[in-house]
Amino acid sequence: MLASSFDLSRWNALHLQRVEQALERWIPLAAPAGLAQSMRYAVLDGGKRLRPLLVMGAREAVASQGAESLAEQSVRDDAALRAACAVELIHAYSLVHDDMPCMDNDVLRRGKPTVHVQFGEAQALLAGDTLQALAFEILTPLADEVDGTPPPPLLQARLCQLLARASGHAGMAGGQAIDLASVGQALTEAELRLMHRLKTGALLQASVMMGAACGQASQASLAALRCYGEAIGLAFQVVDDVLDVTADSATLGKTAGKDAAHDKPTYVSLMGLERSRQYARDLLAQALTALDDSQLGQTQALRALAHMVVDRSH
Amino acid sequence: MLASSFDLSRWNALHLQRVEQALERWIPLAAPAGLAQSMRYAVLDGGKRLRPLLVMGAREAVASQGAESLAEQSVRDDAALRAACAVELIHAYSLVHDDMPCMDNDVLRRGKPTVHVQFGEAQALLAGDTLQALAFEILTPLADEVDGTPPPPLLQARLCQLLARASGHAGMAGGQAIDLASVGQALTEAELRLMHRLKTGALLQASVMMGAACGQASQASLAALRCYGEAIGLAFQVVDDVLDVTADSATLGKTAGKDAAHDKPTYVSLMGLERSRQYARDLLAQALTALDDSQLGQTQALRALAHMVVDRSH
Repeated sequence: MLASSFDLSRWNALHLQRVEQALERWIPLAAPAGLAQSMRYAVLDGGKRLRPLLVMGAREAVASQGAESLAEQSVRDDAALRAACAVELIHAYSLVHDDMPCMDNDVLRRGKPTVHVQFGEAQALLAGDTLQALAFEILTPLADEVDGTPPPPLLQARLCQLLARASGHAGMAGGQAIDLASVGQALTEAELRLMHRLKTGALLQASVMMGAACGQASQASLAALRCYGEAIGLAFQVVDDVLDVTADSATLGKTAGKDAAHDKPTYVSLMGLERSRQYARDLLAQALTALDDSQLGQTQALRALAHMVVDRSH
Repeated sequence: MLASSFDLSRWNALHLQRVEQALERWIPLAAPAGLAQSMRYAVLDGGKRLRPLLVMGAREAVASQGAESLAEQSVRDDAALRAACAVELIHAYSLVHDDMPCMDNDVLRRGKPTVHVQFGEAQALLAGDTLQALAFEILTPLADEVDGTPPPPLLQARLCQLLARASGHAGMAGGQAIDLASVGQALTEAELRLMHRLKTGALLQASVMMGAACGQASQASLAALRCYGEAIGLAFQVVDDVLDVTADSATLGKTAGKDAAHDKPTYVSLMGLERSRQYARDLLAQALTALDDSQLGQTQALRALAHMVVDRSH
């Protein structure tokens, strides 16, 4: 069950470099009236890039299953890189908007002042809106925006489909709405799980499924990856709740203890610290079992990423 | 040059009904924690639906050019309806966010309290974000979300591409950023035109081009439609600036005189009322000439819509 001989830090470094370079290239350097600056500030130079790494890990897992020509491989790898960046842009926009005064009113993110503190509220609102649009731009390149062959239209449409649903009313934004409404409310464990399944789980799971869409996996393999994505999506939030209580702001790069301060329901407030930690370990085991059952060969990166989600310190 | 025998009000009524029914169906009735209510409030029961009508008008113009089977026609008409609704959702989200206190701080829209007045700022932020995601959901339906055949993937990808670019940094959001930065600034006519070409022109032009994408028009016809879209996009804003000075809030359904109150540069402040009116008429003539040159048969609706843009009273 251990990640064993697979060297995650080397794999991470390789794929992070590709993602960072692509984000650098695809977020405009020049846009009207400070918009490029606020967008770049919100995305570049910060973040663990967990979602892009999940896209790349899932792409790697399914690439080993199909019999792709070198040319196909290159087109599908490029599509996965686009998917990785698009998911990160959606994640970044959600952080910018969540930090605004009318939402969580937070001043610190990734160890830096939040976007609205740095650039003002109007610019933060606009930067978030624009990052969302940019995600869909990146998924649907014009012919003159690509070196070589663009992703097949069917794949472009499928990636937009997965991303739009994971970020909208039945995904991230829906979860955020429950979160807003739940401050000071008693939630049951089922309600809390629904909130997080939407708010963070949907986009994490979509990252896996978007990576998987860039290959030709069987229905059984896709179902296994869906289980894997669901388990680590949930585990991510459980660990987040644990860290909010146990870590300090300097380590987190964001304000610690803010859930309790805002009287927000969390796994820790609901089931206590020890049971929360055990729950995260159970979810890790579920994720790894799903990979065992996936009939996919190259799952080392996804295994290691699951460990990283649960064992992280920030 | 006149719209002559074509009955725009009948054509409008027919297509508005289809658009309203589709919006009713595609904006969720149930979404977490009040999100469905705020989204529906922001979109339904209000608005001239100019952008959807432009999509439908352009689709009609290009449908007459291709030799489509009945089955193809039905699939492409459905795609155009999706495009029409998607554009309207993007327009609606931009109004919700523009009205927020950190932007224009407006309290009246389409004759009703603005979304943040009605539901609070956090909910308005979230409703806008979710409407943007929903636009891309509608463009990329899952097989079980359609009666019959979904739009071909190539068309789905193309519609996402046009919409993302028209609403992002090089379109609507970019124009909004210039607008923000321009309050109290002296702009030249060229700068003002750039701002509006992005802020309102890009999405109006994209409406025409998305409708056109739902058919098989020649390059020459597409170029003509692009000119038409650009001219009416600009004309729309010139007339908006004129109405801001000459109409009252009750007629507009939004706060009149707010550009002057906010010390915003407008066509009227730059070139005066009479020259602005003449400019709008010149742009109308340009739009109609572009249609004359388009080699398209069924352009009556687009002609009538151009007249509507320039002759409107709100």
